[in-house]
This record gives sequence, structure tokens and C-alpha cells, in this order.
Amino acid sequence: MTRAFTRTSVRLADGRELHYFDERPVAIRRPSDGRHLSPVPMRSEVRVDPLSGEPVIIAAHRQERTHRPAAEDCPLCPSRPGRATEVPARAYDVVSFENRFPAFADPGRCEVVCFTDDHAASFVDLSVERARLIIEAWAERTATLSGDAGIEQVFVFENRGEAIGVTLHHPHGQIYGFPFVAPRTAVMLETARTHRATTGRDLFADILDAERRDERVVTAAEHWTAFVPGAARWPVEVHLFPHRAVPDLAALDDGERDELATIYLDLLRRFELFHAGEHPMPYVAAWHQAPVRTGRDLVRLHLQLLSIQRGPDRLKYLAGSEAAMGAFLNDLVPEETARRLRDA
Amino acid sequence: MTRAFTRTSVRLADGRELHYFDERPVAIRRPSDGRHLSPVPMRSEVRVDPLSGEPVIIAAHRQERTHRPAAEDCPLCPSRPGRATEVPARAYDVVSFENRFPAFADPGRCEVVCFTDDHAASFVDLSVERARLIIEAWAERTATLSGDAGIEQVFVFENRGEAIGVTLHHPHGQIYGFPFVAPRTAVMLETARTHRATTGRDLFADILDAERRDERVVTAAEHWTAFVPGAARWPVEVHLFPHRAVPDLAALDDGERDELATIYLDLLRRFELFHAGEHPMPYVAAWHQAPVRTGRDLVRLHLQLLSIQRGPDRLKYLAGSEAAMGAFLNDLVPEETARRLRDA
Repeated sequence: MTRAFTRTSVRLADGRELHYFDERPVAIRRPSDGRHLSPVPMRSEVRVDPLSGEPVIIAAHRQERTHRPAAEDCPLCPSRPGRATEVPARAYDVVSFENRFPAFADPGRCEVVCFTDDHAASFVDLSVERARLIIEAWAERTATLSGDAGIEQVFVFENRGEAIGVTLHHPHGQIYGFPFVAPRTAVMLETARTHRATTGRDLFADILDAERRDERVVTAAEHWTAFVPGAARWPVEVHLFPHRAVPDLAALDDGERDELATIYLDLLRRFELFHAGEHPMPYVAAWHQAPVRTGRDLVRLHLQLLSIQRGPDRLKYLAGSEAAMGAFLNDLVPEETARRLRDA
Repeated sequence: MTRAFTRTSVRLADGRELHYFDERPVAIRRPSDGRHLSPVPMRSEVRVDPLSGEPVIIAAHRQERTHRPAAEDCPLCPSRPGRATEVPARAYDVVSFENRFPAFADPGRCEVVCFTDDHAASFVDLSVERARLIIEAWAERTATLSGDAGIEQVFVFENRGEAIGVTLHHPHGQIYGFPFVAPRTAVMLETARTHRATTGRDLFADILDAERRDERVVTAAEHWTAFVPGAARWPVEVHLFPHRAVPDLAALDDGERDELATIYLDLLRRFELFHAGEHPMPYVAAWHQAPVRTGRDLVRLHLQLLSIQRGPDRLKYLAGSEAAMGAFLNDLVPEETARRLRDA
């Protein structure tokens, strides 16, 4: 697989950064955006919940963000004559740019990653080469944002489907540079630290070893293993672990990145077929990465791919038990989910 | 306010318990259910997520539970000739019974609490006397279930609205007797323990003192104060704290229960009017209670009333940041939410 690609960085009209990732080894990109755009006033702050010590982001300005625009008004499509979008180019492969309506910024950072300029595509339809380029973009953005003094953790993710509230249909993901260690990661870090202190071993290695011997493996290859976790919280949930202890996407070597492109597309296809493929499957693809400044030898990079679609026409909702108490109820048995994903 | 009420306990045809709570001081209730019902096979287990140490309930049998039945098939309505429901009576005030499709049982317990026999009502429409009787029922069930050897925490809640997945429209809530301390409570307990160790003070008293001096109080009375928490996770969220340090609903005295009936209905009305009252407001009303066997002097009873309705036609969805990372983004500013609730 070729790994030649080009990154070109430009500034949008209101000063935001945009990065083109092109499959070609050389790409000529216009240096700037011709629009007249005023910066969006930001009103965002991180508050701490005194009952838990956990951060919560209050982001008032976002009520005005673009909400389900018509396809011809899509801000993520390439620009065309008479219609300037967020991407000042007639075509593109992959772009990552600062969100015009970020949940937070300074400290922190919110980027949008467009996976293709084809409005009607989905990640699952992309070529292996394109998936490989997206991985390269994720890794580059992770490395760069990790160098920002205000960022404590880089979170790479895709929300897909109206059922989970996606308001822009153009195939895209997001990257959050959190100005804190996310609550879930803080718990993992503490669990891994306790596990090391009591057993001398690596928590993620032990989980991977146990799952590889169990009946919940969905697919495995040289560098990666995907399994349904035994205590899955979500109706359809897969964890994809690298075999090597790496803290984040930036630490993956070329062989791991190549294989990831193939195995990730394979997992998305299995998700798509899970409910007999009747409609696009809503999902969250969340890359858990180690914090930037702490626990990098304790938290291993892994993907959590989850869906709230518990049946062809039924969603899992978070109600009292989950929303208020953090006590998850899963109506699907993980071993059965794994079998169905293997057979998909 | 009269507090005379009668509790009558019967067994349903498959052996489940049902308790009538009647507003009259004497009530004659048929001792049993005339239906032929086989017990529903249970396939439920509590598993532990090794990444967090948190329990997850796997409840496979529930995929078959009753899903949005037509009003004439409502299992929570009173029985009528030719149509036997879950409640073997022609009329009732309040009933609590074991769920035929429990998420878990033995250890643990799931009860359904019907607030009225009027299918078309909502809690917000009930009289103060009925609200007072429901509080009595909640307190009684909390006390009784706390005596069960397999139950570590009693969770009293109402999920309201299709937007959060409610499948039965008859006005009802639920009670879970968790066979563990819920993850959220475990975090609160640890936070309160650390707070006491470092300051010598009570965490909940300190939060209440701070909030009563702040601009986020929605309503207050002699025994209770309701406020929007400064770090609210949900678009519309109110916490209702008793002024006295009590671990659970069973520990409330008569004066506190009387006032609660009034203030709770007042809060529900404010929720209903929040988005100009255009349609029923979906909400979760969650009673946080101390665990049965630990931390009873550390965790104070309080209500968390939350809604995912962030605008008249917009819902808050839990996507990647919340679902995978536990990092909540709230688009509404708590001080503004409090002002709107005060003015409602």
C-alpha cells in the first residue's frame, strides 16, 4: 500500500486552520478562503461538578449552530462557483479544520474531519486507501494537538446517524482536544494503575489475553483484535485493541496503520449488516487515547464502536438508570452479539 | 393534610407481589389475580467492566417486553370485565408491583409504580394529596426493599416521554432494588468521603449552602431547596435537596413529605412550561438515595430532575463525547435555565 500523501495547511477567512490531506504525493491548494466571515463569539467554560469532581462543558453559543441543512447548503461539501463552503477547494480527499461552532476553544480545540468530498457517501463505502489516509490524518492531528499547552487529551471520533443527533449528513468525524482528562479515561487510568500496583501487569494486555481466549472475538489479524466486551453497555458494541501497547494513534507504526484501514472497514461493514442492513446503522466510533501528559504507559489506544440500535426498529435510550445512576442495562447478550457480527 | 392511607398486599397469578396504596383509611382489595400467567423466564446477570470496575446488567429476556401497546391493551390500567390487566381491581389510587419483565431479579428487584388509574393523566396533573400518597408509597417501598439481603441500593425514578424511550404511556414510575451500589453513587460516596476527610464537613451541606447563596435557585421552602446545578450536564436539570441530612425517602418526616408533595408538583409544572408548554416535556425524575449498607451518613437523599429537550423541537443526544468519554457538553447556561424556570 502506498503511503505517499501531502498535507497542506491554510487559514479560513475568520482565521481558523484547515488542513488538506491528499492522496497524491504533491497537491496544489489555494492558500486561502475568499469568504467574508466574522469570528463566532464564544461563550464556553469548563465547570466542575462538586458531586463527582468531573468537568462539564457549558457551551451556550452552540444553540445557533447549523442544524440539518439541505444537501445543497452543506457546509462540508467542496466550494463551487457562487457557493463558498467551509472547504475552499473544488474537490478534496480528506480535510480537518477548526469547527466554526466549537463546543470549546482556548483552552481546548474542536476540529471537523471530512472523510470525502462525496456528500452521499459513508465511511463504510470508502476505499482502503482512503481509510488509510484518514488514519494518517487522525494520527497527524493527534500528534500536533498533543503539543498544544492547553490540551490534556485528544479524542478522535465519528458520530453517525440522525438517531444519535447528527445534524450534518456529509461523512465526517470530529476531533476534540479536551482541556482536561475525560472522566471515562480518568476511571480507566485509575483502574489500570490499581491493576498494575496489585498484579504488576498491564490491564489492557490482560483484558486482550482473556478476550482472545473467549467466545466474543469478532475478527482478529496480525496487529489487531476486535471483540464484544463481556460487560458491553450498548446493544451493539465492539472494542478494537492493538496487540502492541501504544498510547495513541500517532504511535502506530506503518504496518499497524495499514492493517487498521482494512479491519476498521470490515467492522463498519459488519455493523451495517447487523440488523439485516435495512437502513444506515447509527453508531459512535470513539478512539480512546491516553492523556497527553499522564498515564501514557497505563492507558492503551483502543476503539470503542457502539450502536444504540437494539433491533431493526428499536433504539436503546438512556433513561433513569443510565442517565442518573450510571447503571447500564443491555438487552442483548454480548456472546450472541459477537456471533451475529462474526456471521455478518 | 390527611396522611391516612392503607396498604394492601396481594399476589399476582405468577406469584409476583402487588401493593395497593389507597387514599382511604380502609380499603377492601381482592386477595388475588384471576389470570393464568406463567412466570417469564429470566436471563439476567450482573457483569463487571474490567476497564472501570463498574457493574453492567445483561438482561436478554427483555427484548420481548411489551412495546407501545394500544391504549385499550394497556397493562397498567385497572382490570375490566373481559380484560384482565396487571392490576386486578376495577379502580385504584397507587399501586406498586414486581415488573413482569424485570431488568434483573434475585438478587435485585424491579417494581412498577402506577401513579393513578387514569391512563391519560400525567404526574404533573395529579392532586397534592395524590402526590403525597405516592411519596408515602416510595418511602414504604424504599424501607421494605432496603431490608432485602440482595439489595444494596434502592432507586426510585420516573422516565416520562417517548423521546427517552418510554414504551408504556400510562403514568407510572419504577423502583429498582440494585444488587450493587450504582456507579454514580459510588463516585458521589467517594467524593463525599474525601470532602469529609479533608474539610471535616458534609459535602451536600456545603453544596446546598453555596447554591442557596447563588443565582441558580429555582424555588425554596422550609424543608427543601431546588436549584439548577452550576455544572448541569443536561439542558434542563434541577436538583432538589432536603435541608436536613437524610439518607433516603424513608427517613423523611411528615413535614418534609407534606412540603415535598407541593414542591415536586411545582417543579414538574415549571418543567412543563419551560419550552412554552408546546407538548409534554420528556423528563427523568431520579431519586438519589444512600446505599443500604454503606455511606448512609455521607450521601444525602436528593432528586435529580432532568430533560433532554434542549429546545422546543430539539433534543440533546448522547453522542461520542458523552457516551464514550463521559464528557458532557451542555448548550444551555445553568443561570439562564434557572431564570427561565423561576419565571415559568
